[in-house]
Amino acid sequence: MSEAVATLDGWYCLHDFRAIDWNAWKSLSAGERARAEDELYGLLRKYQNVENAKQGSTAFFSIVGQKADFVFMHLRETLDELNELETEFNKTMFAGVTVPTYSFVSVVELGGYMAKPGTDPMEDPEILARLKPALPKSKHICFYPMNKKREGSDNWYTLPAEERRNYLRAHGMIGRSYAGKIKQIITGSIGLDDWEWGVTLFADDALQFKKIVHEMRFDEGSARFGEFGDFYVGNLLDESKMAAMLQP
Amino acid sequence: MSEAVATLDGWYCLHDFRAIDWNAWKSLSAGERARAEDELYGLLRKYQNVENAKQGSTAFFSIVGQKADFVFMHLRETLDELNELETEFNKTMFAGVTVPTYSFVSVVELGGYMAKPGTDPMEDPEILARLKPALPKSKHICFYPMNKKREGSDNWYTLPAEERRNYLRAHGMIGRSYAGKIKQIITGSIGLDDWEWGVTLFADDALQFKKIVHEMRFDEGSARFGEFGDFYVGNLLDESKMAAMLQP
Amino acid sequence: MSEAVATLDGWYCLHDFRAIDWNAWKSLSAGERARAEDELYGLLRKYQNVENAKQGSTAFFSIVGQKADFVFMHLRETLDELNELETEFNKTMFAGVTVPTYSFVSVVELGGYMAKPGTDPMEDPEILARLKPALPKSKHICFYPMNKKREGSDNWYTLPAEERRNYLRAHGMIGRSYAGKIKQIITGSIGLDDWEWGVTLFADDALQFKKIVHEMRFDEGSARFGEFGDFYVGNLLDESKMAAMLQP
Amino acid sequence: MSEAVATLDGWYCLHDFRAIDWNAWKSLSAGERARAEDELYGLLRKYQNVENAKQGSTAFFSIVGQKADFVFMHLRETLDELNELETEFNKTMFAGVTVPTYSFVSVVELGGYMAKPGTDPMEDPEILARLKPALPKSKHICFYPMNKKREGSDNWYTLPAEERRNYLRAHGMIGRSYAGKIKQIITGSIGLDDWEWGVTLFADDALQFKKIVHEMRFDEGSARFGEFGDFYVGNLLDESKMAAMLQP
Amino acid sequence: MSEAVATLDGWYCLHDFRAIDWNAWKSLSAGERARAEDELYGLLRKYQNVENAKQGSTAFFSIVGQKADFVFMHLRETLDELNELETEFNKTMFAGVTVPTYSFVSVVELGGYMAKPGTDPMEDPEILARLKPALPKSKHICFYPMNKKREGSDNWYTLPAEERRNYLRAHGMIGRSYAGKIKQIITGSIGLDDWEWGVTLFADDALQFKKIVHEMRFDEGSARFGEFGDFYVGNLLDESKMAAMLQP
Repeated sequence: MSEAVATLDGWYCLHDFRAIDWNAWKSLSAGERARAEDELYGLLRKYQNVENAKQGSTAFFSIVGQKADFVFMHLRETLDELNELETEFNKTMFAGVTVPTYSFVSVVELGGYMAKPGTDPMEDPEILARLKPALPKSKHICFYPMNKKREGSDNWYTLPAEERRNYLRAHGMIGRSYAGKIKQIITGSIGLDDWEWGVTLFADDALQFKKIVHEMRFDEGSARFGEFGDFYVGNLLDESKMAAMLQP
Repeated sequence: MSEAVATLDGWYCLHDFRAIDWNAWKSLSAGERARAEDELYGLLRKYQNVENAKQGSTAFFSIVGQKADFVFMHLRETLDELNELETEFNKTMFAGVTVPTYSFVSVVELGGYMAKPGTDPMEDPEILARLKPALPKSKHICFYPMNKKREGSDNWYTLPAEERRNYLRAHGMIGRSYAGKIKQIITGSIGLDDWEWGVTLFADDALQFKKIVHEMRFDEGSARFGEFGDFYVGNLLDESKMAAMLQP
Repeated sequence: MSEAVATLDGWYCLHDFRAIDWNAWKSLSAGERARAEDELYGLLRKYQNVENAKQGSTAFFSIVGQKADFVFMHLRETLDELNELETEFNKTMFAGVTVPTYSFVSVVELGGYMAKPGTDPMEDPEILARLKPALPKSKHICFYPMNKKREGSDNWYTLPAEERRNYLRAHGMIGRSYAGKIKQIITGSIGLDDWEWGVTLFADDALQFKKIVHEMRFDEGSARFGEFGDFYVGNLLDESKMAAMLQP
Repeated sequence: MSEAVATLDGWYCLHDFRAIDWNAWKSLSAGERARAEDELYGLLRKYQNVENAKQGSTAFFSIVGQKADFVFMHLRETLDELNELETEFNKTMFAGVTVPTYSFVSVVELGGYMAKPGTDPMEDPEILARLKPALPKSKHICFYPMNKKREGSDNWYTLPAEERRNYLRAHGMIGRSYAGKIKQIITGSIGLDDWEWGVTLFADDALQFKKIVHEMRFDEGSARFGEFGDFYVGNLLDESKMAAMLQP
Repeated sequence: MSEAVATLDGWYCLHDFRAIDWNAWKSLSAGERARAEDELYGLLRKYQNVENAKQGSTAFFSIVGQKADFVFMHLRETLDELNELETEFNKTMFAGVTVPTYSFVSVVELGGYMAKPGTDPMEDPEILARLKPALPKSKHICFYPMNKKREGSDNWYTLPAEERRNYLRAHGMIGRSYAGKIKQIITGSIGLDDWEWGVTLFADDALQFKKIVHEMRFDEGSARFGEFGDFYVGNLLDESKMAAMLQP
């Protein structure tokens, strides 16, 4: 059995980053703005109902800086549902004053390297909870995509399995030292999007994002093989925070 | 006879990815929208007739995430026909509410490495069916362009032919292990577009895209020589699904 | 005498790729469209007159895929004339419904490596015909820019001249084996545009572009030192084909 | 205790680069322009009040060249405050005639390598003043993001700690030789933005930016490991200079 | 005294490349066009007055191809003056029909390597004339930015000073062999813009740009260490040529 097979896959995941076109927003009449907000908050409640029914989960955060104004991170059972969520949002009046800036398609993933022999990890409730999680309501989010490098002598995919396991173990130990400070969702995007993985971190103290990524950079596996895309950080949004943000 | 000559070429291929400008779509009147949809569905039926007449084939899928909203993958006998398809679509009212996001020009290709000595592969009906295929109506599509690396000591094109053959054989064996789960169309784009090949996968279970690409990444030929472009995944579209998508 | 001096230079060359803004084109009235077409076809005839007078040459092809809708490839005696052609086109009504997508400035070039000792190549009518050619009216065009690599141990410009000559000779032999199938114009752009050379191929069978570029990739000189930009392919245009393309 | 832990973090930092859409600005009526300016200068005064209260600091400079017309560099206690500053500005009339061009999210940082054993650097007033500084009102600003390289044998993160310390010491000595000429704010962005650090320099003589960066490039640590992003330079702005800039 | 200090710096320099939005230009009334041109030619005369007063210099050239339609290359005593020139132009009616496409901020620079011992180069009138030059009115311009490579074993900044000097001497000898054909202005942009140097060449025969850059590419210093950005070439503009270009 190859290692690739040993990876466990959970819900499909769509990170949908959008900027607000403030001129377009301000050009709406008060009535149009009210209708646009009603429709948006209706969607937020609908997402919450899906989460309550354990049929998916949606995180909603602002993004700091010009890369986006907010992100929806949707977890759903199928790729079709993610597509429907996009289309549903695109048809709203509020979507009409936003501009898509980045998206990422992936699947919640647990590396099977830690699977105990003789057990079926898909029957383990703890593992299922990690494959089909309710996304945390932490104060801050951090997202970045990443690859394992394949350059000359730094080629992750030609390393002996034992060596890869050691690197992953050391990496995991740093991660565990942040337990209670950071919750992490790894989503795999090989074959689905341009990077191999997406890392989404949740924390009440945003500085922990900087600390863990900095510390991990000195970890030999990351130092030699980690390739990182753009980093997005932001703050938890909800209906009332969004209303404050959109208030003229 | 060099290896380059041993490659078999079939129909020309155009992947045409497009995003919907939802604001423009919503700004059309109900009558205009109806006319735009009629015209679009007329084209879909025309494409189907071409396929029925075995003069080409067209796949039509949505795309998940912001890279595009849908893709037409057209196979036709000549480069001129692909150009006419583009122009014909561009003149429609529906095209006027879409934005081109990516395209890929190539030719359906079978690596000649597997050709049996003493036979003319172009007389083999099975091979012809692969060079001029009817594209699958699977639930999901996955497309990505790729190159063989030419960097320092990782240069595919300076490898001895025997070594290349071994890599391709190992690669092919992984592919065959997904028979029944994934259908694959390889199109060659050397001299036609910016990448050397396009890989289009079709599956009823989208997770198989992730599994096969992940597994192949550990294959030494891919690990050392595979360079991958952007990945696009999506869901099968037809007239009624498109109508649902476009419904206000 | 250094090799750089041994290169022969002919007419200046501008590849001018443009996309049609179909919404803008469709928004013109029938009268405006007629005027725009008249003006465009007038330019085409003017270009033909220049070619008849052997004062330059212009090729006009459609481009398949989203990179462009058409290309003008202009050869003229001076850089000023190329600039005037651009400005003249920009002032037309038709230019107003197009969007520039890519351009390339270069000079028709013959590598002096093949110059026979004791002769002045600029007095050889065959060489002059290649430096100031009438561009072929083949059915298809293929254009791509390229560099010779300068990376670590793969540095073309530090190779001994003898080694470069051998690579070029092998490369040229592949080229010659396509005589009758492909006509090739090499234009040098060192000091004029972002790549070192532009390669423009003309053929009645577009598949030959794929075959020659594929075959050449296995040539050691290309494998180690060739860096390629975007590839553009298309079909011959003329007044009546353009009229069909633009017909509502 | 790992080195990552030894880094000291101060205020959060947002560099917000914007271009002016001059056509939009000129299309406003005199009354609208006056209102837009009043609102903008009101924000500038509000930022100054925050600085006076030692709750943050904001620098405001023009940018030379087309990359931007001006930059706000905001230091605040929390990531939420940075987000609020963005939203507050985006709602102004003046923001409506600007276009975001680049932003950078980071945290004021002091490398802990210089910490004296047995002391708590966070109780040292000098260090606190550097972590939560009032930004200089120098005549010129220079900003650039940077990484430490991780390529083959030039991998900063796999160097022995002692070697890294030596490189940083040599680097720091060049920096100190510019004392009195250049003030430097280092902000860390690992886990927060796409680069690892942002360097913001302030000087009354802009030529000092060129001198220090040039001199440091020969420093072995920078030569081997420094990767630099885009450079932005500009001139100090205030209410009256901005009024002159915006005057029709 | 380090080599970095040995570089001599002259006037600040802004290359400001712009495209004309021909649709916007054509949409102006004849009266508006006349006013826009008057204002533009007024600026050109103002720039000439500054040059006559030896307080700066401005070159004005068209650009061939789609990268831009024209460039202003401004030399002035301070960074503030460059900023004012930008703002002054941006406020004109003509600027409103142009689109910024690229800019480059730098300082006229003479490598101090050639300084004779015992002399103060800043008192040498010939050197001052090169640091604060009147830009040539040659028929053609060529501009490109460049870096010295810092990759693995090809790292300019870790070479022994003696080796760098030898490379620069060989490079300079090629340059001198073009005396009378090409005038060259080197501007340093380390710490000011994204590349380390800008090279601006002036010639009456544009082919000389191709010849010198080609010849220099075989020079070992360039072959191993030269990294080049985009190349821009164009033709001398003045009031009457600009009027012809803008004539409807």
